[in-house]
Amino acid sequence: MLQGEVDGNGQEKVKTIGKIENAKKGAITFLSNPKYEDFIYSSEASAVIVKKDFQPEKPIQTTLIRVADPYLSFTRLLEEYDKIKSYSKVGVEEPSFVSSNTEVGENIYRGAFSYVGSNVKIGNNVKIYPHAYIGDNVTIGDNCIFYSGAKIYAETIVGNNCIIHSGTVIGSDGFGFAPQEDDTYKKIPQLGNVVIRDNVEIGANTVIDCATIGSTIIEEGVKLDNLVQIAHNVEIGANTVIASQSGISGSTKFGKNCILAGQVGVVGHVEIGNRVTLAAKTGLSKSVKKDGSVKFGYPAMDHKDYLKCHAIFRNLPELRERINELEKKALNLPAE
Amino acid sequence: MLQGEVDGNGQEKVKTIGKIENAKKGAITFLSNPKYEDFIYSSEASAVIVKKDFQPEKPIQTTLIRVADPYLSFTRLLEEYDKIKSYSKVGVEEPSFVSSNTEVGENIYRGAFSYVGSNVKIGNNVKIYPHAYIGDNVTIGDNCIFYSGAKIYAETIVGNNCIIHSGTVIGSDGFGFAPQEDDTYKKIPQLGNVVIRDNVEIGANTVIDCATIGSTIIEEGVKLDNLVQIAHNVEIGANTVIASQSGISGSTKFGKNCILAGQVGVVGHVEIGNRVTLAAKTGLSKSVKKDGSVKFGYPAMDHKDYLKCHAIFRNLPELRERINELEKKALNLPAE
Amino acid sequence: MLQGEVDGNGQEKVKTIGKIENAKKGAITFLSNPKYEDFIYSSEASAVIVKKDFQPEKPIQTTLIRVADPYLSFTRLLEEYDKIKSYSKVGVEEPSFVSSNTEVGENIYRGAFSYVGSNVKIGNNVKIYPHAYIGDNVTIGDNCIFYSGAKIYAETIVGNNCIIHSGTVIGSDGFGFAPQEDDTYKKIPQLGNVVIRDNVEIGANTVIDCATIGSTIIEEGVKLDNLVQIAHNVEIGANTVIASQSGISGSTKFGKNCILAGQVGVVGHVEIGNRVTLAAKTGLSKSVKKDGSVKFGYPAMDHKDYLKCHAIFRNLPELRERINELEKKALNLPAE
Repeated sequence: MLQGEVDGNGQEKVKTIGKIENAKKGAITFLSNPKYEDFIYSSEASAVIVKKDFQPEKPIQTTLIRVADPYLSFTRLLEEYDKIKSYSKVGVEEPSFVSSNTEVGENIYRGAFSYVGSNVKIGNNVKIYPHAYIGDNVTIGDNCIFYSGAKIYAETIVGNNCIIHSGTVIGSDGFGFAPQEDDTYKKIPQLGNVVIRDNVEIGANTVIDCATIGSTIIEEGVKLDNLVQIAHNVEIGANTVIASQSGISGSTKFGKNCILAGQVGVVGHVEIGNRVTLAAKTGLSKSVKKDGSVKFGYPAMDHKDYLKCHAIFRNLPELRERINELEKKALNLPAE
Repeated sequence: MLQGEVDGNGQEKVKTIGKIENAKKGAITFLSNPKYEDFIYSSEASAVIVKKDFQPEKPIQTTLIRVADPYLSFTRLLEEYDKIKSYSKVGVEEPSFVSSNTEVGENIYRGAFSYVGSNVKIGNNVKIYPHAYIGDNVTIGDNCIFYSGAKIYAETIVGNNCIIHSGTVIGSDGFGFAPQEDDTYKKIPQLGNVVIRDNVEIGANTVIDCATIGSTIIEEGVKLDNLVQIAHNVEIGANTVIASQSGISGSTKFGKNCILAGQVGVVGHVEIGNRVTLAAKTGLSKSVKKDGSVKFGYPAMDHKDYLKCHAIFRNLPELRERINELEKKALNLPAE
Repeated sequence: MLQGEVDGNGQEKVKTIGKIENAKKGAITFLSNPKYEDFIYSSEASAVIVKKDFQPEKPIQTTLIRVADPYLSFTRLLEEYDKIKSYSKVGVEEPSFVSSNTEVGENIYRGAFSYVGSNVKIGNNVKIYPHAYIGDNVTIGDNCIFYSGAKIYAETIVGNNCIIHSGTVIGSDGFGFAPQEDDTYKKIPQLGNVVIRDNVEIGANTVIDCATIGSTIIEEGVKLDNLVQIAHNVEIGANTVIASQSGISGSTKFGKNCILAGQVGVVGHVEIGNRVTLAAKTGLSKSVKKDGSVKFGYPAMDHKDYLKCHAIFRNLPELRERINELEKKALNLPAE
C-alpha cells in the first residue's frame, strides 16, 4: 500500500499507530522532520516510515519502510486505518426505535437506544449511534454518521457525507420572544427548519437553531467545531470553518471560505463576504462586505490596525508619563 | 380565523408557511413592509396576507387575504400552526422507563428511552421526548416540554409552562473544591437543588448547577438561550433574558427584566439591579445596583463611557503622533 | 458524629440541610459568622450547630449543637449526607445494553438505557446513569460516576474516582482539516484517544477531543467546569482547575496547579508552566513558561500591567483633553 522498500523484518506485524517520541512495540510511526531523528535510535516502534535515502547514524532496532515522502505515506496510512475502524459498525442493536412510514437505506448501523421518528428518509451507509435522536420528517443523505446522543429535531434536512458528533443539537427553537406590556415575553413560534448540505462536519455539543420561518442553512463543506452556537435563520457559506465556542447571532449571513477562530461572536442581521477571517475572541458588530478582510478585537477593527492600537495600549503608562512631562514644561514656560 | 377578506380563489389549500422571498406553492405568507412588494408579483405562494387597502401595481397569481394588520395576522397564524404541530405528540412509546412511587398527570407524551426516576411528580399535558432524563424526587408542573436528551438531576423543581431544549442539564454539581495542603482539591458536596418557576424557556445544551445548599433559582418568565452557564446558588430575576454562551458565576443575583447579550461573563457573589443591560461580550466584575444601568466592555464600564474610550483607542496611533509632535516642539523651546 | 454538646431537644430528628437564613422545620444548619446571628432567633430550623461558647441574646426555639468549629462540623455533615445520597444507586435497571467481551466489576449501578460497548473494562463501585454511553475498548477504574448522557468515545481510558457530569463528551474527533486546492477541506483522521487520570471531575456539557495520534491527557486531580473545550493533543497538568466556558486549542500543554477563570481562551501549540493563573476572559496567545505567572486581558499581559493600562484606558477622554490643551499652548508659543 505504501509502495515502500522494507529494510529489516518484512514480516513484522503492527496493530496501532504512534508518534516517534513514544510509539511502543506493535506500533508503526514515521520520521520526516530531521529534528526528531534522535528518537528513532531509541524507539520501541515495530516499524518506522522514513525517507528513501535515510542513513542511520547509529544502530537501529526497528524495521524501516523507505518511501519518497514519509509524511504523505503516513497520512495515507491514517486514512486506511480510519476506514477500517469506522466500517466496523453495521447492523441493528436492540432495543432501538423506528417509527412508521420511515425509509431506511442499506448497510445501516442503528445502535441500541437510537430513535428514528416517523416519515424519516435515511440514505445508504448511515451510522446512527446509541442515543442519537432523529425527529419526525427528517431527511438524511448517504454516508452520514450521527454519534451517540446527537439530536436532530423534526424537519431537518441533512445532505451526504456529513458527520455530527455527540451531544450536538440541530433544529432547536430560535431564541425569539416578543416583549409584552406587562414586562413578560411571549414566545414567537419557530416554525422553520435547518438545512445541512453535503460534506459538513459538526463537532460535539454544538447547537444550530431552526429558522423562525424558512431555513437556517449550513452550506457544502462547512466545518464547525465543538460548542459552537448558530442562531435562527443564519446562513454559513460553503467551506467556512468555525472554531470552538464561537457564536453567530440570528439572520447573519456568511460568504464562502471564511475562517472564524475560537470564541468569536458575531452580531445578528449582518452580512460577511467571502474569505473573511475573524481572529480569536473577535466581536463583530457590523457587516464586512469586502472579501478577504481580516478582523480582530471588539468592536472589531482591521487586524493590523488593532495590533497597532494594542501596542500603544500596552504602553499607555509610558505615554501618560510623556504627557505629564510635557505639561510640566508647558506650565514652566511662562516662567522662562 | 384571520377575519380577512379573500381576493382570489377562496378554496385554495395551504399546508405550510413561508417567507415572501421564497415561498412555494402550498405555502401562505404575508406582505407588510412595502420594501418587499416586488416579491408578491413573482411569488409562487398559494396565498398572501396583505393590508386591507393593498393595490397591486402588476398582475398577481396568488390568492390575497386582506386584513387590518398583516404582520399581526401572520403571527396569529404562526401560533395556531405551532399549536397543531406540538399537540400531536401524546401517549407512551416503548421501551420507556418510569420508576416506583411516581405520579404522572393526564395527556402525557413519554417518548421511547425517556427515563423518569422514583418519587417524581409530573403535572398534566407534559411532553417528555426520547432520551430525556428526569431524576429522583423531581417535581414538574403542567404543560412542560422536555426535548430529547434534556437531563434533569434529582430534586429539581420545575413550574408550569416551561420548555427545556435538547441536551440542557439542570442540577449538575456546582464547581466547588477546597484546596488542600498537598496541592490537591477536595470536592465540596453540592447538596442543594435547582428551582425553575413558571413560563421559563431554556435553550439547548445550557447548564444550570444545583446550589451547594439551598437552591439555584430561575424566576418566572426567564428566557435562557443555548450554551448558557448558570453556576451554583445563582438567582435570575423574573423576565430576565440571557443570550447564548453567557456565563454567571456562583451566588450572583440578578434583578428583574435584565437583558444579557451573547458571551457575557459575570463574576460570582455580586448583585445586579432591575432592568440592567449587559452588552455582548461584557465582563462584569462588580455589583451593579442602579436599576436600568447599561454596561459594556471588560472590566465593564457605563456603555457610553466605554464607547468614548474605545473611539480614542481606535485612534491611539494618531494620538501618539500628536504627542511626538508636542515633544519636538517642547524640546525646541529652549532653542527659541 | 459531630462530637458536640446538645442544648435543647436531643431527640429532635432532622432530614435535610439548610442555610440559616431560610432553613425550615426538619433541617439542620449552622451559625459561624456572627453577622448572621440575628437569623438564629427567628429560624424555624430543627437544629443549629453553634460555637461551644455561643450565648444567645434572645430566646431560641431551636435545638443547639455546640462544637469547637461549627463550619468544619457542618462540612463533615455535608460529606456524610452526600455519601448516603450517592451510595443509594446500585444494581441494573432494564433495558440496558452491555456488549460482548466486556468485564464489569462489583457493586455497579447501570441505569436504564445506559450503553456499554465491546471489550470494555470497568472497575468496582462504578455508577453509569441512564443514557450514559461507554464506547468500545474503553477502560474505567474504580469508584467512577458517569451521569446521565455522558458520552465516552471508543478507546478512552479513565482512572479511579472520576466524576463525569451529564452531557459531557470525551473522545470526539479533533478539529483537523487539510485545505485542498479546490477550496474544500479534507478531514485528517483523528486516531488517538483521551486519557483521564485519577480523581478528575468534569462538569456538564464539556468536550474533550481525542488526539490525532497519541493521547489528549487530563492529569490526576484536574477539575473542569461546565461547557469547557479541550482540543486534540492538549495536556492538562495535575490539579489544574478550569472554570466554565474556557477553551484550550490543540497541542497546548499546561503545567501543574494552574487556575483558569471563566471564558478564558488559549491558543494552540504553546506551553504553560506550573501555578499559572489566567484571569477571566483572558486570551493567551503565547507560551508562559514562568511558574506562578498571572495573566490578564487579550492579548494577555501581566495582570498588574494590564490593570495599569486599563486604568488609563478608562480615562482616555481626559488624556486626550490634556493633549488638546498642550497643543493649544504649543501653538500659542510662537505668539508669546
